[in-house]
Amino acid sequence: MTLYDRIMGAPLATADEAKQTVGPLAGIPMLGLDALSSAAYGPEAALAILLGIGALGAVYIVPITAIVVALLLIVFVSYRQTIPAYPGGGGSYTVARENLGVRFGLLAAASLMVDYILNVAVGIAAGVGALISAVPALHPYVLPLCLGILVLITLVNLHGVREAGVAFVAPTYLFVGTLGLVILLGLAKAALAGGHPVPVEVPAAVPVASTGVGFWLLLRAFANGCTAMTGVEAISNGIPAFRAPSVSNAKRTLAAVVAILAVLLIGIALLCRLYGIVADDPDTANYQSVLSKLTAAVTGRGPFYYVTMGGVIAVVCLSANTSFADFPRLCRLLALDNHLPYTFASRSRRLVNASGILALAVMSAILLVAFGGVTDRLVPLFAIGAFGAFTLSQAGMVMHWRSLGRPPATECDRPADRGSRGAALAINAIGAVATGLVLLIVLATKFVDGAWVVLLLIPALFFVFVRVQAHYAFVREQTDCAVPLAVTDLQPPVVAVVMRRWSTITRNALRFALSMSDDIVAVHVNTDAEEGRHLAAKWGRFVEAPLREGGHAVPRLLLVESPYRLFLDPLFDTLTRLADENPGRSVAVVVPELVGGRWSDYLLHNQRSTALKGALLLHGDQRLVLVNVPWRLAKH
Amino acid sequence: MTLYDRIMGAPLATADEAKQTVGPLAGIPMLGLDALSSAAYGPEAALAILLGIGALGAVYIVPITAIVVALLLIVFVSYRQTIPAYPGGGGSYTVARENLGVRFGLLAAASLMVDYILNVAVGIAAGVGALISAVPALHPYVLPLCLGILVLITLVNLHGVREAGVAFVAPTYLFVGTLGLVILLGLAKAALAGGHPVPVEVPAAVPVASTGVGFWLLLRAFANGCTAMTGVEAISNGIPAFRAPSVSNAKRTLAAVVAILAVLLIGIALLCRLYGIVADDPDTANYQSVLSKLTAAVTGRGPFYYVTMGGVIAVVCLSANTSFADFPRLCRLLALDNHLPYTFASRSRRLVNASGILALAVMSAILLVAFGGVTDRLVPLFAIGAFGAFTLSQAGMVMHWRSLGRPPATECDRPADRGSRGAALAINAIGAVATGLVLLIVLATKFVDGAWVVLLLIPALFFVFVRVQAHYAFVREQTDCAVPLAVTDLQPPVVAVVMRRWSTITRNALRFALSMSDDIVAVHVNTDAEEGRHLAAKWGRFVEAPLREGGHAVPRLLLVESPYRLFLDPLFDTLTRLADENPGRSVAVVVPELVGGRWSDYLLHNQRSTALKGALLLHGDQRLVLVNVPWRLAKH
Repeated sequence: MTLYDRIMGAPLATADEAKQTVGPLAGIPMLGLDALSSAAYGPEAALAILLGIGALGAVYIVPITAIVVALLLIVFVSYRQTIPAYPGGGGSYTVARENLGVRFGLLAAASLMVDYILNVAVGIAAGVGALISAVPALHPYVLPLCLGILVLITLVNLHGVREAGVAFVAPTYLFVGTLGLVILLGLAKAALAGGHPVPVEVPAAVPVASTGVGFWLLLRAFANGCTAMTGVEAISNGIPAFRAPSVSNAKRTLAAVVAILAVLLIGIALLCRLYGIVADDPDTANYQSVLSKLTAAVTGRGPFYYVTMGGVIAVVCLSANTSFADFPRLCRLLALDNHLPYTFASRSRRLVNASGILALAVMSAILLVAFGGVTDRLVPLFAIGAFGAFTLSQAGMVMHWRSLGRPPATECDRPADRGSRGAALAINAIGAVATGLVLLIVLATKFVDGAWVVLLLIPALFFVFVRVQAHYAFVREQTDCAVPLAVTDLQPPVVAVVMRRWSTITRNALRFALSMSDDIVAVHVNTDAEEGRHLAAKWGRFVEAPLREGGHAVPRLLLVESPYRLFLDPLFDTLTRLADENPGRSVAVVVPELVGGRWSDYLLHNQRSTALKGALLLHGDQRLVLVNVPWRLAKH
Repeated sequence: MTLYDRIMGAPLATADEAKQTVGPLAGIPMLGLDALSSAAYGPEAALAILLGIGALGAVYIVPITAIVVALLLIVFVSYRQTIPAYPGGGGSYTVARENLGVRFGLLAAASLMVDYILNVAVGIAAGVGALISAVPALHPYVLPLCLGILVLITLVNLHGVREAGVAFVAPTYLFVGTLGLVILLGLAKAALAGGHPVPVEVPAAVPVASTGVGFWLLLRAFANGCTAMTGVEAISNGIPAFRAPSVSNAKRTLAAVVAILAVLLIGIALLCRLYGIVADDPDTANYQSVLSKLTAAVTGRGPFYYVTMGGVIAVVCLSANTSFADFPRLCRLLALDNHLPYTFASRSRRLVNASGILALAVMSAILLVAFGGVTDRLVPLFAIGAFGAFTLSQAGMVMHWRSLGRPPATECDRPADRGSRGAALAINAIGAVATGLVLLIVLATKFVDGAWVVLLLIPALFFVFVRVQAHYAFVREQTDCAVPLAVTDLQPPVVAVVMRRWSTITRNALRFALSMSDDIVAVHVNTDAEEGRHLAAKWGRFVEAPLREGGHAVPRLLLVESPYRLFLDPLFDTLTRLADENPGRSVAVVVPELVGGRWSDYLLHNQRSTALKGALLLHGDQRLVLVNVPWRLAKH
């Protein structure tokens, strides 16, 4: 087992694919982490908008959360219908493409991609933000910490999807368990105290209201609170990652994730109300997150507080992982439809798509660097992609039911699935309208804060998808071949051996040239007058004499002048002239090359031949064939 | 004329080399800028050490400067002897190598290289430092400004040595003229006022002394003041850049540079004494450079003040240019002796060595980024390389005179040159001892501040030079060939055509394969079961049938299984087996490739063939020859 194998895992056979699937217990961390972690920043984001209305913020958060949870349930019911309808992975792209047409599919794909990339950046930035508010000494290292975590998550994912899911089981259940316990304990204390619990640690004084309660303010708070819903679509995209029966496993996982998330959101909102907790201004010195204040109020700042906060930090950081499970899957679907380069369709040695994982890592790294790893700057860009994809997916499902007789019956049929076509259509229509409305609200309230960036990115991606496909179609058309091999008029190629001096390397190349044709020219570009003279002096004795003796054709030595010391230009002129002089024949350009075992050898040798090889490709004269004859250096 | 030619200049013919030389007037800016600009930071650096002794600093700067100038004159006389002795460019490397042996030569080269790189970084950082103290709004852009100036200087130098010299004539003479005028005016005013001139702008109050005057303090001030001497060696390195008679032109330039520098240094020291000017602590808010305070004291802050400061900023920035003239020259000498890759020995289209220029730019950029473009952090590293090279060069000249009868007589003989061998030897010996002593002082006083970095860098470079030469010697030995071409036992190669599907591209490649051999195998790696089946289905009709009909040998189609979806490993197994089965014959691996006019095409195609070509090189099996058959995409 090599070191590489030790780190990256041994290769997995294609036949082992089934073993890489997971059940609901590992599926929740793998595909649900994004959704669950939203509980850590959704309520906070909503409360931050309500800062101006002082203590009333803790009052209004309850109805706002109630609407968000209601919306969450609508989306849940809608996606629950999508899973059995698209058991191969009912992502927004697939559903929209099949039912609304290619263009809407690509729009959904672009939206999702932007959302996945942002999710990685926001998740890691938020986790590191929580970490540095716990350990302020780490403050100068925000960006290196962000990038370090990104590298770690990338490596784990390159290692394999299953490993990634398994690695994240502990933090996920730690987060859900501790936060659930805080909520239970807080509600119990409140009930015992008749609705007026005494906080263990009294939260900082609530600032007095500076503005009144207005519709626009509540709308903005709601739009921010909706970030709590991002990530719910991941499960219906990732059905093939579940072990059989994958549809019912996916449905069970979706139900579990939504139930946990709803409980957490409602619990957090109620505790805020009961304990009078509002958000802190992030710019103040003693900034505390809502979850931190809430946990301290319920349990005090004992060991349990730190365990809970550790879970929050871990889950927020690792929520980025959901994107790593789903983004490459989406890339693969797009590549199979020719909208991305083929490399995104292949699965590498560990059965994951390395190109997709690396592309996601690179793009999130760019975002993290561009925004300095600061969550506040990234959040306004968030949620637009997700709600765009939600809406397109639900709208697609509406068309699906319209064109289909009734929802398909599956082995895990439930009464809801067996409902009439009309009921299913109605559910998805309600979902589409609701998420579409939220999309409009999010766009309107966040546009100036940075949402416009997303509105530029999505069309840009869309354009790339369309252009890539057009290019592949063009190439296919040009290269598809229904003509058999032509075997008439086969002439041996003219061979041009590029030669600097007489050496074992060029001798070896010349010998290979002789084995493929009798028509050979040795070309020397005279960038240094002395070299040319040396070579010419040896030519007669070392090349002409033995060939004449053996009765072979004798190759010419062509010394090409180069007054400007250029190498490539005079060489190409000569090669093109050779091709012109021999119509219908190829010119095989023999490039002798030193090869050795050590990479450092390539810094010291072959610079000219590397340039020549690159130029031959870019030049693109179909008559010039590159023949690279290696001569191996002895071990040293 | 293409855009590239417009920016970079048309190519220059080798025969035009003489036209690229300069006389003393352009030679001073080209090779003397480094030395002259030292006047802007040498006195400042010495005065900064004397900060602690308050007003006494303005007193002690005069004797310290006197010693520095005396040393400068010793170095001048020494180098004046070196120029006619080594008219081909008497750099420290050449002199030390010829007279002290290869190892000392390489030590001198490494020292000089480090000095050149540091000179670029320090010059640009100091210039930008002066600029931002004039325009504080630019403060956040220190590093981008540094890198921008670096790019500019790099481009000008790629354009040609002569152009670089000419471009810098105006700022150099502006600097010398204005500063000379300030000194003249200041001294005249002082003389008229009986030695107690009234400053136009009274310098800020001198802080009271916090420490006494001690030997170590004065030694450190002297060591810092010696940075004023860096750059003097550049002229004797660059003799070939002068127009004929190059030796006397070089000597004239050296004399002019040293005279101007000595006048500036003494003038600045005297004015400091007369006007009571000491250095400011660079960390204080109202920091002013010594030259700025001095000019303001003599002339006030009128337009002349700003013109003078503009000259200072420009010259300090552009002093980096001297390194750009000399560093590539040194690289070329090292490459001609096989201590650096050959690419450093070539001259590109504008008769400069682009590799050397780019290497210098990259290494200075690394230094600038690593030290954030802050002069204070870079200065302690400075001057060690220069004095190391001074010492080795002078010591080399001592050995030169010992081995030689007497100094050679040249067309521009002067009494000093005609002195006996003993006098010449004595002058260089005094120079060697003096500069060696300064080297020890600089090392001792600056070691903890960062000089140790240089003491690591110089041996590292030394090691590289030795290893590169050993490698080239090893390769030469292996590749030198005194054996004629062997023409017996020439067998056509076995051709393996790597094939994914039947297309115009692979059809074209197969046709080329047929033109070079009758023994062909088509290899398909089955990473995708369907592709293999498709290809096999077409094989009989599209390949076998026409060949059989034409009476040709029919190639086999080899489908290679790949359970882990790998491409390269199974392919190489197959190719190696083919080579084993055909002892004494080469296996020509035909890689069909799509070539097109647009670079974006290469992102979408050929990933596999690129990987294959790289692997063939690294694999280094001498029996495997790469044949790259291009198929050109129609324009689109």
